[in-house]
Amino acid sequence: MTAAPAADDITTDLPAYCQKLGEAARRAGLAMAGVSGAQRDAALQAVADALEAASDQVVQANAKDLAAAPGYGLSEAMIDRLRIDAAGVANMANAVRQIAAQPDPVGKIIEGRVLPNGIRLQKVRVPLGTVLIIFESRPNVTCDAAALCLKSGNAVVLRGGKEALHSNAAIARCVAQGLDAAGLDPAAVQLVNTTDRGAVTELLKLDTLLDVCIPRGGESLIRAVVEQSRIPVIKHYTGNCHVYVDAAADPDLAVDVVVNAKTHRTGVCNAAETVLLHQATIDNGLAERIGVALSNKGVQLRADTRSMAVMSGATPATNDDWNAEYLDLICAVRVVDTLDDAAAHINRYGSRHTDAILTQDTAAADRFVQSVDTANVMVNCSTRFSDGQQYGLGAEIGISTDKLHARGPMGAEDLTTYKWVAWGSGQVRG
Amino acid sequence: MTAAPAADDITTDLPAYCQKLGEAARRAGLAMAGVSGAQRDAALQAVADALEAASDQVVQANAKDLAAAPGYGLSEAMIDRLRIDAAGVANMANAVRQIAAQPDPVGKIIEGRVLPNGIRLQKVRVPLGTVLIIFESRPNVTCDAAALCLKSGNAVVLRGGKEALHSNAAIARCVAQGLDAAGLDPAAVQLVNTTDRGAVTELLKLDTLLDVCIPRGGESLIRAVVEQSRIPVIKHYTGNCHVYVDAAADPDLAVDVVVNAKTHRTGVCNAAETVLLHQATIDNGLAERIGVALSNKGVQLRADTRSMAVMSGATPATNDDWNAEYLDLICAVRVVDTLDDAAAHINRYGSRHTDAILTQDTAAADRFVQSVDTANVMVNCSTRFSDGQQYGLGAEIGISTDKLHARGPMGAEDLTTYKWVAWGSGQVRG
Repeated sequence: MTAAPAADDITTDLPAYCQKLGEAARRAGLAMAGVSGAQRDAALQAVADALEAASDQVVQANAKDLAAAPGYGLSEAMIDRLRIDAAGVANMANAVRQIAAQPDPVGKIIEGRVLPNGIRLQKVRVPLGTVLIIFESRPNVTCDAAALCLKSGNAVVLRGGKEALHSNAAIARCVAQGLDAAGLDPAAVQLVNTTDRGAVTELLKLDTLLDVCIPRGGESLIRAVVEQSRIPVIKHYTGNCHVYVDAAADPDLAVDVVVNAKTHRTGVCNAAETVLLHQATIDNGLAERIGVALSNKGVQLRADTRSMAVMSGATPATNDDWNAEYLDLICAVRVVDTLDDAAAHINRYGSRHTDAILTQDTAAADRFVQSVDTANVMVNCSTRFSDGQQYGLGAEIGISTDKLHARGPMGAEDLTTYKWVAWGSGQVRG
Repeated sequence: MTAAPAADDITTDLPAYCQKLGEAARRAGLAMAGVSGAQRDAALQAVADALEAASDQVVQANAKDLAAAPGYGLSEAMIDRLRIDAAGVANMANAVRQIAAQPDPVGKIIEGRVLPNGIRLQKVRVPLGTVLIIFESRPNVTCDAAALCLKSGNAVVLRGGKEALHSNAAIARCVAQGLDAAGLDPAAVQLVNTTDRGAVTELLKLDTLLDVCIPRGGESLIRAVVEQSRIPVIKHYTGNCHVYVDAAADPDLAVDVVVNAKTHRTGVCNAAETVLLHQATIDNGLAERIGVALSNKGVQLRADTRSMAVMSGATPATNDDWNAEYLDLICAVRVVDTLDDAAAHINRYGSRHTDAILTQDTAAADRFVQSVDTANVMVNCSTRFSDGQQYGLGAEIGISTDKLHARGPMGAEDLTTYKWVAWGSGQVRG
């Protein structure tokens, strides 16, 4: 990216390089506060155009990363996330156009009133300022994150994984072209131009220049960032998601939804990990049907003593199973006597990501919704729906497992804050 | 408070004592999620009644703290903040009744839609869960914080300063009576029952039990909390507030507002510390009028070289003055050539608390509002208005200088988060 200092700056003085990135981001962020929504959307359209025009180059750059992947010891799943084909580039461009088409989150008046002294008070949405995104091998994050930050009027510093080095650079060039075409500061989107791990440490010190850090990746990445950061971090921890099958569950619906939540895609954070079964489902045979349906999909069952008898082929669950995010064809199973016991289990072991109840009893549904302390409560549908795209937010910057600022799928509006503006005519306090 | 373990637990095992407080708070917080707004308001009314009935006891308890205050080396200003008379108790009770009368922030549907697959999606406001408030010598914080947390459906752990030990205990007894009268768990409001500083260290480790920490006090307290805490902290740093007097300022208005912002109450965070003067105000005599008006109020002026000639009695400002939060009858003065220079000064040296522009030029006002990265922008009125009570939020839990979650004066709604609730009828992802 044009705003990044020359390579020799990096190798000789990493702290100075990161400081320059941060200062350029702050400058660009302050300038972005004066850029209209129309101009930001024009930049996004130009980014999408540039991506389509450079599709071959992006795919070729990605091929270099794919060739190097075995050397980094990447698993098949990781290589799969790294891969971009022409359709992948088209998808990225489409996502950018969708983001451009969304309403502008900036400038929205959240609330307002005329105070008794005549001051007109307004609480107005404004960009956060500067955002640091730290991510691993998925190069489409470069595009999504840049687009969401641009949409919301923020400057962003992107730090991708070394595995996606060439892909990220090729995508960032398209973003830079879009900024240039719309007359925006190239420092509005900066890609960190070194794979030195020390850069992350340096960037996380810049709490006067960077307003928020969003790490996207595995739990160890996020914990390391939280440990080091002086910048506020919005965390996206694990998804230890539950499906509770109530006494009043519809049996066919329950089998379908449990199987979908567990097996539709196992490696994602909104996949189910534990199924909680009301005792009544043991008695009426529904528990056994669910066990068979999961087994037929190749799921290994880890059952508590009360469900063991009806979960054929299951091995005994231990306490570790209640805490596990398997991300695999494995499912913990536990029987509970009441809905309250199910909620207590989830509040104790869950990761506050996504938890579901299956029931035809509206009072039970209401009680579960209220009792379970989680970002996403699904009633009679799969946990797999807790997703920014599914929720209609367009691309998501992540799924927050924090409670402050933003919770669950985060879109462009979650990259804003607000300011209070008091319009007076000479009022003083007496 | 009833929920606090006996004193011998504290002295023998501080970590275990704090763990118990945290666990009791989590339990109470989860239970509060099922308590109706009417019941929470009934508890608040009962707290107000209890305060009024125990007015004499609160004042007597406060007298013990006042008697001990010189021994703690408290300044006159600090002793003033510590003092509660009968009118002070009545004010506390009134504040609690005002909070009870506010609309319930819990359960509000922030947004919602029906997804193409028929799922009804809702984003619903819910309590944060558990709040830790750490504060210094002002005992009314015990009452305000408990009331705001109760209003918003949270359980709270209150850690007051040793200087207000007896006052806080007396107020907390009234709160406990109110909870009891409304049938709520006494652990919904717990006062830390030891003045051992190690308790703060232990409490700040409890990130699985406490959802947010709000320190209220001087900068050193807040920095110490941020340094130690594993719990997310909402920070209330200093108020280095600015008044920018534009070329197009109304002269009489400018003199009144600058004097009010600087001198109405100097020891508070929304008092002005630096006045930025457009060069035109030097040329047209307004700068000199402002200097005289401030001097007449006993303000010592610290002037830059360009304003020195017209600021009679001023001493030269140094760079330290631009960073200073004097909280005293001292004012830094600097001349700028343009509004953009004023904004750049504020964005560099300000603390993002409250900054004002005085101008009759609407384009200048708009540009300032947009350019200055601050929680509260005042146009043609005193910085002293940035306050929860003035803004109509009722009592405030503080004034956030953070950008995430809440910014500026924080009321009950800022102690909530939200959950996404997806009401389905068997939807699975295909």
